[in-house]
Order: sequence, then structure tokens, then C-alpha cells
Amino acid sequence: MNLDYIKPDNWSIIEEGFDADHVKASESLFSLGNGAMGQRANFEESYSGATFQGSYIAGVYYPDKTRVGWWKNGYPEYFAKVLNAPNWIGVNVIVNKEELDLNTCKSIKNFRRELNMKEGWLSRSFSAILQNNIEIEVNVKRFLSLELDELGAIDYSVTLLNSDAEITFQPYLDAGITNEDTNWDDKFWDIKSISEKGGQAFVESKTMKTNFHTCTFMQSHVFHNGKAIEVSPKVDQSETDIAFTYSKSVGKGESLSINKFGGYTVDRNHNQNELVKASKTVLDKAVTAGFSQLLEAQKKAWAKIWETADITIDGDVKAQQGIRFNIFHLNQTYLGTDAQLNIGPKGFTGEKYGGSTYWDTEAYCIPFYMATKDQSVARTLLTYRYKHLEKAIENAEKLGFKNGAALYPMVTMNGEECHNEWEITFEEIHRNGAIAFAIFNYYRYTGDFSYIPEMGLEVLIGIARFWHQRATFSTDKDKYVILGVTGPNEYENNVNNNWYTNYLAQWSINYALDCIDKVKDGYSEDYHRITGKTKITHEELSHWRKVADNMFFPYSEKHDVYLQQDGFLDKELITVADLDSSQRPINQKWSWDRILRSPYIKQADTLQGFYFFEDQFTTEELERHFDFYEPFTVHESSLSPCVHSIQAAKLDRMDQAYTFYLRTSRLDLDDYNHEVHEGLHITSMAGTWMSIVEGFGGMRVKNDTLTFEPKIPKEWEAYSFKVNFRDQIIKAEVSQKETIFHLEGTQDLKISVKGENVTISPGQKVTV
Amino acid sequence: MNLDYIKPDNWSIIEEGFDADHVKASESLFSLGNGAMGQRANFEESYSGATFQGSYIAGVYYPDKTRVGWWKNGYPEYFAKVLNAPNWIGVNVIVNKEELDLNTCKSIKNFRRELNMKEGWLSRSFSAILQNNIEIEVNVKRFLSLELDELGAIDYSVTLLNSDAEITFQPYLDAGITNEDTNWDDKFWDIKSISEKGGQAFVESKTMKTNFHTCTFMQSHVFHNGKAIEVSPKVDQSETDIAFTYSKSVGKGESLSINKFGGYTVDRNHNQNELVKASKTVLDKAVTAGFSQLLEAQKKAWAKIWETADITIDGDVKAQQGIRFNIFHLNQTYLGTDAQLNIGPKGFTGEKYGGSTYWDTEAYCIPFYMATKDQSVARTLLTYRYKHLEKAIENAEKLGFKNGAALYPMVTMNGEECHNEWEITFEEIHRNGAIAFAIFNYYRYTGDFSYIPEMGLEVLIGIARFWHQRATFSTDKDKYVILGVTGPNEYENNVNNNWYTNYLAQWSINYALDCIDKVKDGYSEDYHRITGKTKITHEELSHWRKVADNMFFPYSEKHDVYLQQDGFLDKELITVADLDSSQRPINQKWSWDRILRSPYIKQADTLQGFYFFEDQFTTEELERHFDFYEPFTVHESSLSPCVHSIQAAKLDRMDQAYTFYLRTSRLDLDDYNHEVHEGLHITSMAGTWMSIVEGFGGMRVKNDTLTFEPKIPKEWEAYSFKVNFRDQIIKAEVSQKETIFHLEGTQDLKISVKGENVTISPGQKVTV
Repeated sequence: MNLDYIKPDNWSIIEEGFDADHVKASESLFSLGNGAMGQRANFEESYSGATFQGSYIAGVYYPDKTRVGWWKNGYPEYFAKVLNAPNWIGVNVIVNKEELDLNTCKSIKNFRRELNMKEGWLSRSFSAILQNNIEIEVNVKRFLSLELDELGAIDYSVTLLNSDAEITFQPYLDAGITNEDTNWDDKFWDIKSISEKGGQAFVESKTMKTNFHTCTFMQSHVFHNGKAIEVSPKVDQSETDIAFTYSKSVGKGESLSINKFGGYTVDRNHNQNELVKASKTVLDKAVTAGFSQLLEAQKKAWAKIWETADITIDGDVKAQQGIRFNIFHLNQTYLGTDAQLNIGPKGFTGEKYGGSTYWDTEAYCIPFYMATKDQSVARTLLTYRYKHLEKAIENAEKLGFKNGAALYPMVTMNGEECHNEWEITFEEIHRNGAIAFAIFNYYRYTGDFSYIPEMGLEVLIGIARFWHQRATFSTDKDKYVILGVTGPNEYENNVNNNWYTNYLAQWSINYALDCIDKVKDGYSEDYHRITGKTKITHEELSHWRKVADNMFFPYSEKHDVYLQQDGFLDKELITVADLDSSQRPINQKWSWDRILRSPYIKQADTLQGFYFFEDQFTTEELERHFDFYEPFTVHESSLSPCVHSIQAAKLDRMDQAYTFYLRTSRLDLDDYNHEVHEGLHITSMAGTWMSIVEGFGGMRVKNDTLTFEPKIPKEWEAYSFKVNFRDQIIKAEVSQKETIFHLEGTQDLKISVKGENVTISPGQKVTV
Repeated sequence: MNLDYIKPDNWSIIEEGFDADHVKASESLFSLGNGAMGQRANFEESYSGATFQGSYIAGVYYPDKTRVGWWKNGYPEYFAKVLNAPNWIGVNVIVNKEELDLNTCKSIKNFRRELNMKEGWLSRSFSAILQNNIEIEVNVKRFLSLELDELGAIDYSVTLLNSDAEITFQPYLDAGITNEDTNWDDKFWDIKSISEKGGQAFVESKTMKTNFHTCTFMQSHVFHNGKAIEVSPKVDQSETDIAFTYSKSVGKGESLSINKFGGYTVDRNHNQNELVKASKTVLDKAVTAGFSQLLEAQKKAWAKIWETADITIDGDVKAQQGIRFNIFHLNQTYLGTDAQLNIGPKGFTGEKYGGSTYWDTEAYCIPFYMATKDQSVARTLLTYRYKHLEKAIENAEKLGFKNGAALYPMVTMNGEECHNEWEITFEEIHRNGAIAFAIFNYYRYTGDFSYIPEMGLEVLIGIARFWHQRATFSTDKDKYVILGVTGPNEYENNVNNNWYTNYLAQWSINYALDCIDKVKDGYSEDYHRITGKTKITHEELSHWRKVADNMFFPYSEKHDVYLQQDGFLDKELITVADLDSSQRPINQKWSWDRILRSPYIKQADTLQGFYFFEDQFTTEELERHFDFYEPFTVHESSLSPCVHSIQAAKLDRMDQAYTFYLRTSRLDLDDYNHEVHEGLHITSMAGTWMSIVEGFGGMRVKNDTLTFEPKIPKEWEAYSFKVNFRDQIIKAEVSQKETIFHLEGTQDLKISVKGENVTISPGQKVTV
């Protein structure tokens, strides 16, 4: 299962030796991104082997007409697709009329790729003998600038090893691209103009239907043995692309290299008619600075990110590499500067799943961003959902709900539901609870209540109204039940009384009621604005309360556990350990009905509730539920191992916690699910971070206080992490012997460690 | 809702006055078929208005690549599509260079269509003023021959009303046709050759992928004022079609007419290389006989069908028209002569739902064919499933079943599953029970046990094995449960312990065990063949018995009814009567999740079990369950009203029974579901027959004896029906006063009427 061709390294992802079978996986693993755009690690030069070409611009999508086998009332008309954008990285390389193509070379030696996560660049080097027997050495370095986030830069160098030859570089822009993920092979892009001036080239194109106007641009410079030379390029232009051709005769042992700058400007950030001008500005800045200076800036920018976000692990290089890989890709995907963006499940590394926003953001990503960045980033993510509130209300109306009830979409780009699978789209409604939970979690962590009167309360009211209407009073049970749902465990569909969903529903209503009271007491202006807008009445609130107070929770006396849903005990309860390994992964081996009637759990479901609401249960209760459910859990979702790692650590089961940690942190590096070629599991990477900070570090916030229960796997000598808590940076260094806390801040901070109160002062180290 | 443009008539379907909005509906209602082929009532001449062109050849299908939104393991690769075949009915009509097109005429008068069900022909007449102001009268008659079932015949006559003119007939064959129902706009047909010789034209084409070779053919003759004339046609041919052009100048008041013979030969019935030859033979026979003689034969053939199948109703012309419409279309669709064919849900009237075989055949159609035709027809339908047993075993294997367990497909053409909606394909497994029930029902009705040792027992064993493996032992309930199913009520998906499914499962196992014993006792050669082939052991049978003996049935003490499934009582039990009518039909007004969590029932589910196994419950139990479930039933399936009509009649609720009867018998004529333009509901038509014979007539077979409980709706003066029971024809004439039985047969027959034994002798009438 493990790819294992990735070399263990503390700071880099390294591949040595060329294997065409690894190309698509490596294109995912070595992906680059800077929050505003990103791309798979496709080769710059032509490659005729199997490849998945992808370059993506944040927030630029296409509404692809829905494709289903059988239409169900209520399905959305389209699915917002992550959209492959024009290719700006391409550089054809020709040596004496023979094109470099790693798929057709006579031999390839010393192939090496490195994704340097510390400094934020990708390099590739190899020597190759071409079909014409000329041997060359190639060195490429590429990065997407954090400083100028519309810019990428490439330094591509060819050295002649065994002969003189004419080397031709043909940098190009290609807008004749397609999507891997497409329902109907629609044309996604309309090319508006292709132009060049003064060595700069521009392709203006717009997306069909959504009309995102973009400009893809490039400019290149050629160097002979490192010295800039003037070569007037030949310009070739077709309907879809533009290429500059630079040729020069070069002697044996000499090198010719090209610096190519390129990227995208988008009308989300510029006037639609000034994209070429904006692109020119970017290119001019790039050329003025030059590749080296830009690279230096890149290193500094990444150093700044790592300053707060880094986690170190001593004595376990694979674990170290895993966590940094996760933190790096999260930062490549989303930096929190643009309130219109969110954290797509594949980030900029693939197209699968479409959309940009799942409940993953609220359940898994917000804790990471909250603790590793300024708290404004988490607030921006919450604001994103506030801006989608009207759409969530419309979405609920389409499903028959009234009176401002809001159902947030399963997946979206602009607030509208995109998903079209009834058991998910209509029934995986627990997502609504995660959005309410994130508001609570943000306030708990940051202490910033202001979001709630400003925006959050309206969201909470819409969500509470949904739950109130979605519950059904069962005269048979004399309780409110929630029928026909899919929990986080998607290996159950259309079940009744999923415990997690019912619990979240009850909690969401109660939390909304609490917040209404608080806002009423402390923010009367906001209170009047909100009550005026939402028209909530005391009578309505009492109806909510009745539902919350009388919610049904399936429970087994025999096992003394809450049941995942009605009827769970009717299943044939054979544990995963007793399941023939030839049957796994069940999602590839079994038909869907068999999965559904089995007891097997895709990801934490009841345990997800115990994770969110840990305070509301005893450790004994957690242990009982963990022991009941984990043995049936196949962890076939990328979001599963992290929660289990955290809970195993809490239960002092460090071996199990460590196993789960490795599985979450190296999910993509080791390709547990045989699908890394499709892109990376970006959102679950935040779960990896949680499994160290919340799992091993035992970090929680209780009563406005950071608390820790530090533990360490026996495989590690030490580990450290930092969190930004209310504008102070706390660093924890945990070794087998002790834990040292360190505060970068301005005022004393009281924390709690293993139940003991500890005060740390700025600049001071405290050993516990 | 009612179309109501169809004139009430005892024997014909009549439309008067042209309305372009009715064209597609009438194309369905006036469809023709002869068991071997069929076609929608498309106009012969050009029509530029909205139309759904369709001509279908029995058993000729295309495996259309599956289309889904989200693939689930176990889905079949294709969906067998009913395939629009080359058009042979077309006759362009040109008058002084102006083409006749009812969509562009200046005026249309006296438009009349008649589908004469007694004699099996379709006629159409009208007068029209063309754009060139020439007024013509048109009379057309068309039929598909029962005698020569590869042949259709058209008599098309034009009379000039206000001027002399040149009339041109252009009969053609057009193989450039497409399907309405297509997943990917595949090309379905490959045209092999187009030829003509001696006034006969042939288009040989074959279906893509399935390689059904067909020949479409035609030959025409022209008549001036009724007298045959020799006009040498001009021949035009393109890549997809061939046309003959006949022109003649005709005087005012005179007529020109054309007889066109056409149809299909198929390599299911002929050598692939001899299709043109076979077509020529058909044409030669047709020409020799001529239109009139063929029409006479047609009348005789339909008279023969009606001789046994007719039901008369006195005093209620709409009810009379309804039942004959149903009987007529059933006979147009399937005549029981070809063991490879079955009864498609839309017959030859449309493409929707694809495939040819659903559980409708076993549950609804077999009783009709058993009682109105020779019992060999029902045996042929059972044989069809026997021939698909291997495929049913493969189908079950794909879903993880072993040891010869058989799961018959939800829909099929060749035995392979075609359906691709997990909650149906994988979970609507009750279909398997209907197939076992049909075997039982056939033996009960015909007394012919021989099918069971010959074929049926193997089917029953495969089905029993499936149920045995599909049940799960619930330690919690100490019973066997069946998890994750969809019952006949498709408004519930993935439920546990659907009572109907569990009951059928138990019954199927017990019936298989009974039959094994009977075959062992009486057919030892077959027994050894079957046990050798299936390798059943005593141990296996005891496992089956354990499952059957310990099956769980959800039950409510409070209501004293079996529950449709686990958790039914948790629903908000608002009856349909109390549901705002603006919300109906719920399948058009509500999102799928809302339907699923509602209590509303699409068609009989628990009551379907009470229908199949009436003997096993008291009338009080039936009444209790009817009163509990019917009020929640929205009857949004065409298969719903008939069962309810039968049960209402049994419960002496004649008004309700009559209402349900009208709804089932005039479902398409009155277009209750707003979809008649897509085609007719063929299989549910057999339910209409049942609701008279089993409902009002109260006919059952008990202990090898026909029993009756005749009742009559107050709206009717009298009704009569015939059934073929064990090679004797029994006619029942029921009036408000009495019932008269009449026997056409050779030996005395004991029947039971309202619990009294009655003996009827051949030729004798008995009044009860």
C-alpha cells in the first residue's frame, strides 16, 4: 500500500529515480499553492506519459450541469466544479530539434524531485539521453510567490553533457485546456484575446456561465552559463495558445537556462477591463526583482508561517515529515486573507469532489487556523458562512422548510447547494450543527463574543429553526425524533435518530437560545436589529425549547452506550478485526447495500459527538463508547483517524493513538487509500494537526483557560508545537521527561497542565 | 386532470377535433402493437409540431452505458434501452408542391381518430385547407397484423375537395432515427444496406453492441378513385433513407390513395443473411392478399382474442371503455408465443423505464394471461425466468451472495440487472419473492405441478438461498431480521424489516421446502437431477428453516397491525385526507427526504402481502390493516389502485372499490398522472382486469376449485367476464339481481359461489 518511494526527510518531500508509474501521484504530492492559486507538480517540458494536468485559481469555478441516473425532486441544477485554468508553466525544451520528453528519452539518470516545505519551492533535476543521443542535465526550480500571490516563477536550466547543440526554449501559455472532472464535456473557458508586447504575453479568457474574467501571463529571460543574454524570440500564436521561441547554440559543458514568470490576474481582484494592465504590473515587479530576490522573499514568507505553525518531532523522521507535509499544504491552500475563499477538500491539487466548502472547514480546519494564525482568519471563515445565510435559507425552502430555517449546503462555492445524491444532499444534515459548533468553538477559543451579535446569532437562529422543523414528534415514543438522516458515518443512509445528529440538533437549539439571551442582555442594539429581521417570538423559542428538551436518543441498556442510530443492534456485530482482510477496503469490495447493512463505520459518528462535546461526558463514558464503536470502524474516510487518535490519547492508549496519528499524517504520503493521484486530502490535514495538539498535547480551552494534558508516544524523543491564544504565542515542548512551556507575548498567562494551574510570563520558560 | 377529449365508447377510443396539444398523448393512447412489434400513433405524413416518434421491435434493445451522479459498487455497466426502430409508416403527401402538415395547414375540420379495439385497427380522417388553398379530405386506416406479425398495413386516401391538383405520395423508410431515452446520445443503429427491387424497398440495419440485425421493408400501390393504377415511382435514396415518389394529376372530387405495406424482419427469427429474402416473402404475401383481406383476417384474429378475454359492463360506458382499453393494450403488447419476450412497463408505446421485465409480470400480469389465454402462456412467462436463473445467480454473486443464491434483477432484457439506483437495484429485493409467488400461483391456478420439477424448483432453491443469506440474526431481537430494503412502497428506502419483504422471505423459504419434499416424493428423477445440480443438503435446509421459523415481523400492539417497517409509528401520522391538496402529488411537490420521512405510501406494501396471502389472514385482519394503511396511501404508482380495489370489494366497500376501479382502468385515458404522453402503463393494466375478476367477481382458486363472491357496483347494470380454468372456459354474468355461470368445456365443473358448492355442466347456464 505504501508508496514508500518518498524519502523520509524532516523538511522536504523527496523522490529519487524516475518511475512513470509515480508521475500522477507525485504531481499531487509535490503540488504548489499560495492561497490564491495552485497547481499540480506537472512538468514544465512536454510529457507524453500518463499525467493529470491541473492549475487552479482560487474561487474560479464552473457550474456543471447536474448529472444523475434518476432525478429526485430538490436536486440542484448544477455542481460547481473546480476548474483547470490555462497553463502558464509550460516550457518546451528542444535540443537539436529533438524535444525533451521524459516518456521517450533513451535513459534518465539521477532524477530527483524535492518539495522544500521550509522555503516553499519545488525543484527537479535529472540527466537524460535524448533519442538523438545528446545527453543533458536539467535543473528546475519553481515556486508560487506568497508575496505577489498572482505570480509564479520558474528557473529552468539545461546543461549539455556530451556534445555541442542548439538548445531551444519555448515558453508558452495554453488556454486550450480541459477538466478531468466534467459531467458533459462542456466547454468551460471562452478565450477572449491573446496578445504579446515587449516580451510579455497575455491570454484573456473567461469562464462560461460564471463569467470569471482572467488573464494568464508570462515573461521569460534566457541565460547562457548564468549570464543574461538577449535573444529575440520568435512568436507563435494559435487560437488557444501563444509561445515564444528562444534558440541558441551552446557548447558542450555549457548551460542555457530560462527564467519564466507567469500567473493569473482575476476580476475578483481587478477591474475586468484592466487585467492585462494588472498582469503587466505583476510581471514588471517580477522582472525588477528577478528570480533570486523573489525566491529570497519566498523563503522569508514561509519562515514567517512556520514561526507559528511548525510542529517539531524529534526521533521519528516519518512522523516529522508527515506533520509538516500537512501544515505546509494547508497553508498552500488557504491563508485566510480573502473572505470569499474557503478550504476545498483537494485544495489546488485535484478536482475531485468539486466545490470549495464542506463541513470539514468548521469541524476540522477552523481549530488549526484559529491556533496557528491571527484569530481574524477563523473569523473570516465564520463570516463566509454568514454571507451565505440567505442562500442557506433558500436551500432549506427548496426542501420545504419555512420561516427562515437555514440548511447550509453539503458542498458549495457560492452558498448554493451543489451536491446531488439524496442520501447526502438532503439527509446529511448534521453539517448544519457543525456550523453552529464552529461559532461556539471560535468564541470558546478566542473569547471574541462580538462575532455573535454581529453575525453569528442570525446563523444560529436559522440553524435552530431548521432543527426545530426537521424534528418529528413521535407519539409512539412521546419524544421528538429525527427521521431519515445520514450521519458523519456515510456507510449508513436514511437512518432514524442518528445519535450524533440528534445531539447536535438539541445542542444547536440550546446554544442559540443561550446566545439570544446573552445578546439580549449585553447587545441590545444588535438584539433589536436581529429580532426585527428574524421576527423571532417568545412563542417560537418555547417551541424550540420543547423540541430540545424532549429529544430522543437511542440507547442500549445492555451495552450502556448510546446507539449510533435506531436499530444498530440488529446488525451482525462482527468486529473489523474479525473481518477477512480480503474484504477490505469494503468501499471497494462490497456492494453498497452490503455496506449499509453491515456494522462498519466509515468515520467517527457517535465518537464525533464525544469529540465535540467532550465536557458533557465522563472519561468512562468516552471509553465505553470508544470500545464499543472503534472496533467496527474501518476508517475509510480521511477524516476518521484524527478524531480516534485524539480520543485514544485521552484514554492513555498511546500505541493506538500513535498508529492513528501515522495514518492521518501520512495518509497521502503513504497513499493508504490508493487515490493520491487524484489529489491530496487537504481538509483532513487539519485533523493531523489536531491529533498532535489536542491529542498528544491534550490542549483544550476550559473557562477561558488553555489546558494541557501532555503525553508523548514512546517512538518520539520530543515534540513541540505553538498556538496563538488570544494574541499570545504559547510554545509547548514535550519530551519523555518533561514539558516546557514558553510564552511569546506581553502579559502573564495562566494555563492548566494536568489539572495544575501554571502561570507563564512573557519570555519565560516553565517546566512541568 | 382528465384529458376528457377521448369520447366515451364501448369499443373504440375516439378523438374528435384536432388539438396540437393532444398529439403526444394521443400518440400513446392510440398506439398499435401485435406482440412482435408496435408503434406510437404517429402520423404517416409529415408533422412539424410536437411529436414523440416511436416504433419498437420486441426484444430488440441497446445496452446504454450507465449514467449516474455517484457510482456505487455493484452497479451494472449498462441499462437496456427500448429502442426506437427505423420508421416504415412514413408517407409524405404533397398536393401541388405543398406538403401536407397538420401543424401548418390553414384549417383542419372534422378531425377524427379511432382506435377500434374490437377489430384491431387505427383510423384517422380530416379535411384540411393547405397553404396553397387546396382543400383535401384525408382518410387513413392502419393496423399491425396479428396473422403476419412482421407486417403492418396502411391505407391512405386523399380526396380533392375544391380544385384539381397533382397529388404526390412519397412512402419512405427512414433509419435515421434517434431515441427519446438515451444516456449519452450514442448512435444506436448501424445501417448496413439500403436497396430496392421491383417496387420493394429494404433497409438492413443492426443495433450497435447487441448486433440485432433487422430489415425494415415496404411496398406500396396507388389507387385512383379506388382503382389500382400503375405509376412508376421515382426512387430517392440517402445514407439513412429511401423514398418512392408517386405523382398523379387528379380532378376535383376525385381521390388518390396508397396502400403501404411495411414492417420488420429480425434475426431473432431468421438467418441474419436472409432478412431481405424473408422481408420479400412477407411483402409478397401481403400483396397477394391485399389490404382488405388482411384487414378481414385482422378482425377475425382480434375476435378470437376477445372471445376469451372480453369483459362487458352494462350501464357504464366509461368503465366499459376503460377495461377494454386495458385488455386491448395488454394483448397488443404480449401474446405469449415467444419465450424470449416479456411485458415491458410501457409496452410498445414509449421508452421510459427501459428494459422489458419488472416484477410487475409476476405480480400483476400472470393472473391475467393465465385466465384469458391457454395456460401455456403463463408457463412461457415462468420459463423466461427459469432461463434467467444463471444470470440471477451471477447478479447475486456480484452483491456478495454465494452458493447459488439467486437475485432476479429489478429490470432486465436478458437476465442481467440493468437498474442503477442503489435503493432500488440492491434493496428492492421483494421482487425475488414475487417470482416465487408466481410459481405457486401458476400451480394453484392451473394444477400443473410439472413446471416445478422441470424448472421451478431450481428457481425456488436459488431464491430461498438468497433469503437465507440476506437475513441477519439479531441477537438483540433473538430473531432474524432483514435490514436495508425498499418495499413495494418506494416512498421508503433502506428500511429495516419491511413486513412485506420479511413475510415473502419466510414464505419463499417454506414454499421451497414444501416443493423439495413434493418433488422428492413424486419426481425422483428430477429430484436427483436438481439435488445433484444445486448440491442442497439436509443441513442447508435446516438452516433455511431456522431463518423462516424465526423471522421477525414488526407489530404494533396499540394498533393491532403489522408495521410496514421498523419505526413506522415514529412518523407524523397525518392522513392523506388531512394533507393540503396543494401538496399533491407529493412526488412532484416534495423533495425526496420529505417524502421518505412522511407516512405516505406510494402503492400497496403491507396490503400487497395481504393480497398475495389473503388465505393466511382473517377478513377482520385485512380490514384493520386496510383501515390503517389506506388512509396514508397516495396511490402515486399505477400499480396501487387495483390491489386496493380488490380489497375494498372484499370488504364490501363497493363505492371505494368502484372509485379505485375507475382510477386503475382509466389511468391513462384520463391521464391521472400527467404523463400519458410518455407512453401507457401497460403492466398495471393487468391489475385493472384483476380488480373486476378478483375484486367484483371475487374469483379465487381454493383447493383446486374456482370460487366466486360476485358483487356489483351500484353504477353498473351488469358485467360479465370469462376465465380459462384448466382448459374450460367459465363465463360469469353478474347483474344487480343475480349471477349466471356458463361453461364452455367438456366436463362438469364444481365451483363455489358465496360459499355454496355449485356444479356447472358444459353448455349449461346456472343462475345463483
